Amino acid sequence: MLMALAGGVGGAKLAAGLERVLGDGLSVVVNTGDDFEHLGLAISPDLDTVMYTVAGLNNPVTGWGLAGETWEFMAMLERLGGESWFRLGDRDLAVHVERTRRLNAGESLSLVTAALCARLDIRCRIVPMSDDPVRTVVLTDSGELPFQDYFVRLECEPSVRGLRFEGVSSAAMSEQFASAFDAPSLAGIVICPSNPYLSIQPILALKDVEARLRKRRVPAVAVSPIVGGQALKGPAAKIMVELGLEASALEVARHYRGLIDGFVLDQTDAGLADAVASLGIRPRVTDTIMRDTGGATALAQRALAFLEELS
Amino acid sequence: MLMALAGGVGGAKLAAGLERVLGDGLSVVVNTGDDFEHLGLAISPDLDTVMYTVAGLNNPVTGWGLAGETWEFMAMLERLGGESWFRLGDRDLAVHVERTRRLNAGESLSLVTAALCARLDIRCRIVPMSDDPVRTVVLTDSGELPFQDYFVRLECEPSVRGLRFEGVSSAAMSEQFASAFDAPSLAGIVICPSNPYLSIQPILALKDVEARLRKRRVPAVAVSPIVGGQALKGPAAKIMVELGLEASALEVARHYRGLIDGFVLDQTDAGLADAVASLGIRPRVTDTIMRDTGGATALAQRALAFLEELS
Repeated sequence: MLMALAGGVGGAKLAAGLERVLGDGLSVVVNTGDDFEHLGLAISPDLDTVMYTVAGLNNPVTGWGLAGETWEFMAMLERLGGESWFRLGDRDLAVHVERTRRLNAGESLSLVTAALCARLDIRCRIVPMSDDPVRTVVLTDSGELPFQDYFVRLECEPSVRGLRFEGVSSAAMSEQFASAFDAPSLAGIVICPSNPYLSIQPILALKDVEARLRKRRVPAVAVSPIVGGQALKGPAAKIMVELGLEASALEVARHYRGLIDGFVLDQTDAGLADAVASLGIRPRVTDTIMRDTGGATALAQRALAFLEELS
Repeated sequence: MLMALAGGVGGAKLAAGLERVLGDGLSVVVNTGDDFEHLGLAISPDLDTVMYTVAGLNNPVTGWGLAGETWEFMAMLERLGGESWFRLGDRDLAVHVERTRRLNAGESLSLVTAALCARLDIRCRIVPMSDDPVRTVVLTDSGELPFQDYFVRLECEPSVRGLRFEGVSSAAMSEQFASAFDAPSLAGIVICPSNPYLSIQPILALKDVEARLRKRRVPAVAVSPIVGGQALKGPAAKIMVELGLEASALEVARHYRGLIDGFVLDQTDAGLADAVASLGIRPRVTDTIMRDTGGATALAQRALAFLEELS
């Protein structure tokens, strides 16, 4: 049994690779700090990205949404003067409508997600980090912004001064998250190459999560989302600079110190391996760029082999 | 200024014909007894059918929905195990989502409808009969059924014993409906060829509507939805038989007695003209079948000429 922590695109790719190797021997715990209400719908972008990617339905070009998506709803909504800055594809919309209906009927986000995953023939468990609402708020030079306003509407343009996870102090880990942590069969933990600040930090900020990770009895590894000082996708490197940090894989390793035993760096960053080691974290240099599903599966296998070495 | 009362397909066609002749000199008051909540969305089928038909966006084959509609949302919803008996097209869905959002924000159905119509470049006023909820309940040999369950899910199969309009006793005419009635410029009233029981009766059942129609100071005409003992579309004739009535245009004229001065019959039913006249209602025999927009415009013109004669 393996537990992976993941957010958006990069994390979803590795989660899908892990699922191809482990099948139902995997629980992917997903950030819900990006969740928001839009047009009366409950939208969970990271859960959906992971779900679509694991199911092989994702759009590999955009990184979000469904392959072969159509946009008739959106075109009509624009004609009607509705809000159109957040693009909802016709098929994607079905997920939001069905999720919203079930949540309004009193089901937990965990239960709804499990039901959707079953329908999409997903073998692993995809688990929201919490069934309580947590909302990431971005503190920027233009003031506080709800996450999707920052991320989608303003395209990450404002400079980030800090982050706040609204509701996190009263939010509990979801039952499935806690039981994945406690499972006697748990053999390892992987922090996927998702944005450490926007995607992973909300998970770590939940009560007990960091403490449990520090006291882990199984090895944990993180895969760097920063390669050659750049994020492959998204604003991770930009945010690091804005927060006064060095945009580097080393900085990510430093960020996770105490929570992980091993750190997977891209071969581009081989020169940082010694510095990672000097943090007390075992480095593993390899090709981390997941160009296709084969690449993601290979990276998953290498991460699993690394975990085994660390046991 | 003309006021038309309308429900679904046939009524929408004539309303569109009237709009092509009168432009903004027309108010179409539409049945909302068919409205329902589905998948968390506020759906107003008759308002939408009138809106789409007047805007020229309607699907002329099905009679409901939009021309060139796509069904990606529905296909995905089915895959996810959602309810799929009520078909929501991708573009149609935008109307429901936008309407629901605005209603939840506190706007009245009248206001929302006016805003949607403006966006669709509709010149006439399309007016919900009431801003208060009225829900048609069909009393059948299989028990009481919400309207859409009877109409769509069960395809009008159960035998109808009666109808009930839930909420109608506490529902008020919408402000726009009342003011169309009171307008000094009102020159005539047309009851469109919609189902007299399912589409027009909910409007007539609203407090004051029948009384106002009986005391009208302008001529009123109805166009028969029954031609040769058959409804051109929908279950009107079937329901008439089930209610122990004769399925004929004459029976429709009898149903409207006291509310109308003239009655438009199809040439197929020319033989019923004398019997209509003996009810004290002036008959007008003409071709009432609206095969295309030209046919609907022609029928609208003949109805208007008939009204003028009755002034």
